[in-house]
Amino acid sequence: MELIHDASMRLLEEQGIELLSAQARQLFKQAGAEVDETSGIVRGPRELFMEALDHAPETFVLTPRNPDKALEIGANNIHFGFVSGPPNIHDHVNGRRPGNLKDYRKLVSLAQYFNVISLMGNQATAPTDLPANTRHLDTYRETILLMDKVFSAVPIGVGRVRDAVEMVALARGISTDALHRDPSVLTNINVNSPRKLDDTMADAAIYMAWHGQAVIVTPFTLMGAMTPVTLAGALVQQNAEAVFGLTMVQLAGPGAPCVYGGFTSNVDMRSGAPAFGTPENALANIAGGQLARRYGLPYRTSACNASNAADAQAVYETQAVLWSAVMGHGNIVYHSAGWLEGGLVASFEKVIIDVESLQTMACILQPIDVSEEEIGLAAVEEVGPGGHFFGTSHTIERYKTAFYEPLLSDWQNQENWQQAGAKTATTRATETWQKVLETFEAPALDPSRREALDDYVSRRKNEIGDGEP
Amino acid sequence: MELIHDASMRLLEEQGIELLSAQARQLFKQAGAEVDETSGIVRGPRELFMEALDHAPETFVLTPRNPDKALEIGANNIHFGFVSGPPNIHDHVNGRRPGNLKDYRKLVSLAQYFNVISLMGNQATAPTDLPANTRHLDTYRETILLMDKVFSAVPIGVGRVRDAVEMVALARGISTDALHRDPSVLTNINVNSPRKLDDTMADAAIYMAWHGQAVIVTPFTLMGAMTPVTLAGALVQQNAEAVFGLTMVQLAGPGAPCVYGGFTSNVDMRSGAPAFGTPENALANIAGGQLARRYGLPYRTSACNASNAADAQAVYETQAVLWSAVMGHGNIVYHSAGWLEGGLVASFEKVIIDVESLQTMACILQPIDVSEEEIGLAAVEEVGPGGHFFGTSHTIERYKTAFYEPLLSDWQNQENWQQAGAKTATTRATETWQKVLETFEAPALDPSRREALDDYVSRRKNEIGDGEP
Repeated sequence: MELIHDASMRLLEEQGIELLSAQARQLFKQAGAEVDETSGIVRGPRELFMEALDHAPETFVLTPRNPDKALEIGANNIHFGFVSGPPNIHDHVNGRRPGNLKDYRKLVSLAQYFNVISLMGNQATAPTDLPANTRHLDTYRETILLMDKVFSAVPIGVGRVRDAVEMVALARGISTDALHRDPSVLTNINVNSPRKLDDTMADAAIYMAWHGQAVIVTPFTLMGAMTPVTLAGALVQQNAEAVFGLTMVQLAGPGAPCVYGGFTSNVDMRSGAPAFGTPENALANIAGGQLARRYGLPYRTSACNASNAADAQAVYETQAVLWSAVMGHGNIVYHSAGWLEGGLVASFEKVIIDVESLQTMACILQPIDVSEEEIGLAAVEEVGPGGHFFGTSHTIERYKTAFYEPLLSDWQNQENWQQAGAKTATTRATETWQKVLETFEAPALDPSRREALDDYVSRRKNEIGDGEP
Repeated sequence: MELIHDASMRLLEEQGIELLSAQARQLFKQAGAEVDETSGIVRGPRELFMEALDHAPETFVLTPRNPDKALEIGANNIHFGFVSGPPNIHDHVNGRRPGNLKDYRKLVSLAQYFNVISLMGNQATAPTDLPANTRHLDTYRETILLMDKVFSAVPIGVGRVRDAVEMVALARGISTDALHRDPSVLTNINVNSPRKLDDTMADAAIYMAWHGQAVIVTPFTLMGAMTPVTLAGALVQQNAEAVFGLTMVQLAGPGAPCVYGGFTSNVDMRSGAPAFGTPENALANIAGGQLARRYGLPYRTSACNASNAADAQAVYETQAVLWSAVMGHGNIVYHSAGWLEGGLVASFEKVIIDVESLQTMACILQPIDVSEEEIGLAAVEEVGPGGHFFGTSHTIERYKTAFYEPLLSDWQNQENWQQAGAKTATTRATETWQKVLETFEAPALDPSRREALDDYVSRRKNEIGDGEP
């Protein structure tokens, strides 16, 4: 790890990062970095970066409109995030289609329904039926109305993150000043790897830092395309880019909550196609956690896959990176429910399949109770050699809650399963999400706050008009 | 862990284990245990068990007929075992059917073909088309002819394990005395939980220990049915039963190779159906490894599932317990390819799906090379901000072997995948096993050894006739 750290510091010292935001370059110049205004390249000694990161908190709390769903980010906490970003939707009833607001609502409802999902990063799908310059207002409103958990601002330009900050303050019924001291919102900016940080993302991050909201900096890197083809090279570049972006956040708002992000997978070297859930992706998930901890920062990682269907491939790829995300001490695991087709699709069936395995993981992470009562030696004596435990009081007192009860798994024998239609898990998942959506009820919100949100959205839509890209 | 250990020692001291083998009871009596010849119950002070286990080696080597495929068992070695035991077969061409010798051959060929499979435990399927009293001779012969890896003797009675020992000696062209010093064979005995060890298994284990071959002792326990409903209670009972069986092995042959086995899952408390790949199963896999290491013993665990199809459920259940088996430092992971329907079926498609994820796991367990050449800072400089790495010499020199190349995963885009027939991973797995079997070639075996095996089998079949249950 120290070799990776050292090489990434040399990268920042000798090669630097191209930074497209003038205000961000100004921050680095003031901190003593070497800034080339022609090329936009920023270089600096490692001390500059390490000192800036010293200001970043090791843990912080994000409080959504329902304070019971506040999240401590960092330490030993693991929070599973819903799929975010796909331009398309798929389910087994309606097939594949472009993202749209109606499906967006359904996806947010699913994210709200399942307790194992702690937060939503970016939009669960892009509602491509709405104008690109104002659709974030619609998705923020829908998200706040349907979900009382932490969610992410769209990290493209100051306008979009400011709208998130303002709207969450309205939803909580507090001022943006109060929100500064008690943050709610996070956003995730990507580095345009290799070595390029664009201005809309940089400026969004700076705005967030100024307002005390959380920024995740995640270099989006596919080994062989956007980084060297080696894991070591990819990790060095990821680390340099993440440290650079996080330094920018700390220079803008020293002490602002921020998160080290890793998103390093590889391409298929025969076709150039992106791949996820590969061994290389898994190793990067683990190594990213080591690097984040080296700097005392919370860690964001992901659990993705490249399958075209919610099938066995989707699951074994996802599991390889989910387990490595958790074993790597990921504090936030993005895309852990619903991601399909390398992120081009949000899949309803995959949401259900993933929730089952996230719930399983949450149970596995519970310590084993080894009290005398739980051990129950008297029950063993009572049953005797060759007997069974079904009828003992030790069993009867506990059987209802002794084991995880699955959401999707079917444990019938083959004959009964055949008679019930021989449905695979993916087929049963369709029934599960349909049932959830049929009975879903949005969490209550004070009508005056809802009105304030509606007013804000319509005022901003008027303001924006055809403007704001 | 110490609480689990202590309670299991109390179980052995106070309640004891019913041991049906007279010669096994004699071994315990000679060692100073309290033996009730009426009930068959054996009790003893913890020192008796701990001293016996002190003789067991921490690691040992099993050498099959191909010495290049020798396995060190214990320490940091992980060996993946093929599915073993199912009475039925399933594939997507021929459907579900009872196990038979023809399919047995196919399964052994698959186990041989994939390098990530290190060993085969028991029979890959029971060839129910052959007489029960001699079919082990047929499966041993087929296994030796088609596979040059370590395999397991059928642990039911002395005759069956003796035949394995004799036949492997013939296959290696060495005497059984030489085999004693340089073991090849392992077997796995189950405790008939709760607290009962039957005579056929006990006598088979004692024979193996006398001849220096390896014995795994695995209590087969389903929480709520064969153990208390709690994890703590199940682990206590598992540990007591495993320690008891391993003590018997060490009393028979002090220093004989042996392995601590764990196979603790749970039942569905609504139906009583066995479940695998549950969070409880995963936690037991991890805790079992801690207990085995406490006694300085190699650890055998499993990666099972309870799905009726080689679908998403089969994979997420398997993955939960595969990862916990590996994270729990399992030295031998039984059933890690091909297990389906809670062990009632060996599935050809599941073999392929599992091999893909085992290969992935094997890659994940490789350390990252962090040499200067691998890091390739010069390549990062050469590409510059916003560029791509496809054409750099650093990439070109490495791209062919840089990444794991999948066996089954399909990374085409959605359009191409649709045009290619929209095949799920399970459908593609059918094509994969068919291709493997079409081109499979059995590993060479000296014709004189083959002849010796044939002679042995026909001599023993005559000997057995209608006898030997």
